[in-house]
Amino acid sequence: MDRLVVIGGDAAGMSAASQARRLRSASDLSIVAFERSSYVSYSACGEPFFVGGQVDDLDELIARTPQQHAIRDIDVRLHHEVVGIDTDRREVTVRDIEGDREFVEPYDDLMYATGASAKRPIPGCTLRGVYELRTLDDAEAVRQFALDGARRAVVIGGGYIGLEMAEAFQNLGLETAVITATDGVLQPQLDADLGALAASLLNDAGLHIDLGHRVESLEGQDGRVTKVQCEGHQHEADIVLLGLGSEPEVRLAVEAGVPLGESGAVAVDDRLRTRVDGVWSAGDCAEAIHRVSGLPVNFHLGTIANKQGKIAGTNIGGGDARFPGVLGTAITKVHEIELARTGLTAAEASAAGFDAVASTFESTTASSYWPSSSKLTMKVVTDRGSRRLLGAQIVGGPSAGKRIDALAMAIWNEMTVDELVNVDLSYAPPFSGVWEPVLIAARKAVSELDRSGS
Amino acid sequence: MDRLVVIGGDAAGMSAASQARRLRSASDLSIVAFERSSYVSYSACGEPFFVGGQVDDLDELIARTPQQHAIRDIDVRLHHEVVGIDTDRREVTVRDIEGDREFVEPYDDLMYATGASAKRPIPGCTLRGVYELRTLDDAEAVRQFALDGARRAVVIGGGYIGLEMAEAFQNLGLETAVITATDGVLQPQLDADLGALAASLLNDAGLHIDLGHRVESLEGQDGRVTKVQCEGHQHEADIVLLGLGSEPEVRLAVEAGVPLGESGAVAVDDRLRTRVDGVWSAGDCAEAIHRVSGLPVNFHLGTIANKQGKIAGTNIGGGDARFPGVLGTAITKVHEIELARTGLTAAEASAAGFDAVASTFESTTASSYWPSSSKLTMKVVTDRGSRRLLGAQIVGGPSAGKRIDALAMAIWNEMTVDELVNVDLSYAPPFSGVWEPVLIAARKAVSELDRSGS
Repeated sequence: MDRLVVIGGDAAGMSAASQARRLRSASDLSIVAFERSSYVSYSACGEPFFVGGQVDDLDELIARTPQQHAIRDIDVRLHHEVVGIDTDRREVTVRDIEGDREFVEPYDDLMYATGASAKRPIPGCTLRGVYELRTLDDAEAVRQFALDGARRAVVIGGGYIGLEMAEAFQNLGLETAVITATDGVLQPQLDADLGALAASLLNDAGLHIDLGHRVESLEGQDGRVTKVQCEGHQHEADIVLLGLGSEPEVRLAVEAGVPLGESGAVAVDDRLRTRVDGVWSAGDCAEAIHRVSGLPVNFHLGTIANKQGKIAGTNIGGGDARFPGVLGTAITKVHEIELARTGLTAAEASAAGFDAVASTFESTTASSYWPSSSKLTMKVVTDRGSRRLLGAQIVGGPSAGKRIDALAMAIWNEMTVDELVNVDLSYAPPFSGVWEPVLIAARKAVSELDRSGS
Repeated sequence: MDRLVVIGGDAAGMSAASQARRLRSASDLSIVAFERSSYVSYSACGEPFFVGGQVDDLDELIARTPQQHAIRDIDVRLHHEVVGIDTDRREVTVRDIEGDREFVEPYDDLMYATGASAKRPIPGCTLRGVYELRTLDDAEAVRQFALDGARRAVVIGGGYIGLEMAEAFQNLGLETAVITATDGVLQPQLDADLGALAASLLNDAGLHIDLGHRVESLEGQDGRVTKVQCEGHQHEADIVLLGLGSEPEVRLAVEAGVPLGESGAVAVDDRLRTRVDGVWSAGDCAEAIHRVSGLPVNFHLGTIANKQGKIAGTNIGGGDARFPGVLGTAITKVHEIELARTGLTAAEASAAGFDAVASTFESTTASSYWPSSSKLTMKVVTDRGSRRLLGAQIVGGPSAGKRIDALAMAIWNEMTVDELVNVDLSYAPPFSGVWEPVLIAARKAVSELDRSGS
């Protein structure tokens, strides 16, 4: 009997375990998953909505409990942290956190799915009341602390989690500020112009964003945070959420000699094999190839983790599945503002060596005469030579954002904007003008390419 | 100087005129457009929403007035009906309806854009209070009549216009029933199973639909409609809307010897030329090639009319543009139910000779734990041999429908469902589960193809 050991029990790890089990029975493959937190198979993306109270019960964020995994002969060990990997002997050293003991577990296949960890580069970030948001344990703790008499919240960083958590704090009735080092939000996921527009719309929607300020330190009293100090000014804070981005959790891999790629994440091939025999990796800790730039990248998105995990599991299970790469498609909603992106921004496209041409325009989420129509700004990035669509960004009101999927599909298929102009997309007045914004985007891009003499 | 004559002043005709003008100045090309109704360049798709009062002012449905066209040297003649075409002499005979006279107008290029007309196959359909909905004149008349003391409305036919008008009558406070000859709505745009599901959801939403009844006649008193007689039962009615579908308005073309295609609409090539020199056609009266079946089809959709018109105008203007064909992508919203389709239904795919495999599943419009998440049913049709996606249908709550565009994009690019499974689409809990329904569709289709031994 072969043994599969999974390090990290969330999207990538448990998808791999589940898929491997589908293909290989318990008499052929034993599966054990070690998870240092209290939960596996949960929706990390749902955490801000639990904190803010839109989702009542933490259990709703759990796709599958350890008991449910056990029924399918997947042995989940909570509060167990893998502290070492010996790739020669094919065994891991595991620390049972509650039992306070260590033991060794052998493997034939090892799934390295440690995820990512929050960046905490600010002095004072170990004060009480300072949180990051990774696991459900974090979500429970931050909600409890926020409800326990906190009045003022400060979010440091204007990324997806930062913005969603700011809305969550507002929903709990806390006076909330977001501090960003950049002049816009979702940097660098959006180009600077759309990031600034998004910040302005969010300010209009009642979210105070303090743009362009670097946080110097967190100050406290009796070990509890009280202030966020920026250059020249400070914010009082009872609770602070660190939303400074995350980095792949690769320490164990590095120590074990599992090579990283250029992106700083674990290098994998399209079957999700690392460069060490028997070791697989997927999710936030693993690299992926960007389909537009061809470069290795490392995004921390549940969509990618689930897909990569499933593919790794298929291969561990004896199948042959290939991961075709990513576009970095992402979406969020903060108050009524939707923000979405796919492919390369103009800045990313230029950095990747494209002769990038950007077109930005304003349209509406429904026919202009439709009562609930709202504004939508779209930016598309094209390559001057090939006239291919390279990327798109959307900032707008309700129902603006999901159009990103049609654009992602166009980029995935390497469409030129000339082809895109005439694609047969849907229209009715409650949904768009007769020229759907995705098609207007293509028309604007064609004009811009023609005008600028491509 | 060349002369362009346009017959029919809505989407296709005026798009062609505008585009030709962009490319050729008034000193090079004169443009005159004859329109028998009182308006040009209007949103026919917006009419039900004007009738129902969501759109206050008819002017909001007008994209460009005759005066606005005149500024760009496009001569629009309202209440002028072309009654004959002489393709040898290259001239049309025009009846000035208000002036009650006829005259002859020569052309070098003729744009045949007469649109479609409602089918009226029922005895009694000339009674007062019986309406079709094509022009803005129709919309004004039906709204006025409905507001003028009508209490009971009957819509005959469960197509897009029928359903939207039923909602409009309800919004005006009329007791409303829809009668369909089929056992579902949007037949044959949806497969029978999804049409029945849609009817059931609409009934739940408060729209009474009398399924599976053929209307025998309309009865009246003093020339005004009072009853709709079906086999075995009848509906009292103060106002009746005929939503029995439409047919291409080809009489003039036939009389002039402009050949029709297999679909019954005017045959055109991909530059929108008819088979008669100097005569172009676009929009509801013209044929298009279905990109999946390869067969000529005739859909009556504003999206197609606008695109074809623009392409015809480019070619008339001396450019070279090609119409790449259609998928028949369409969407509507009735109360809170969204209905959308693209490509071929299972029935259409089988009829077109494909070995069609259908997969239907239920999902949600947001993560299942998201408070405003609603149900969504998706059906996808694939080809057993090539494993290509052939078509998709969606029935669901708010924000369900627009996903059809991502599926249309996949079909347009001839993707297999195996490729589609891993496309990098967006996800956040307010927008979908971590597996976006479009990707679930692909997974279900792959399973179904594998299971049924493709």
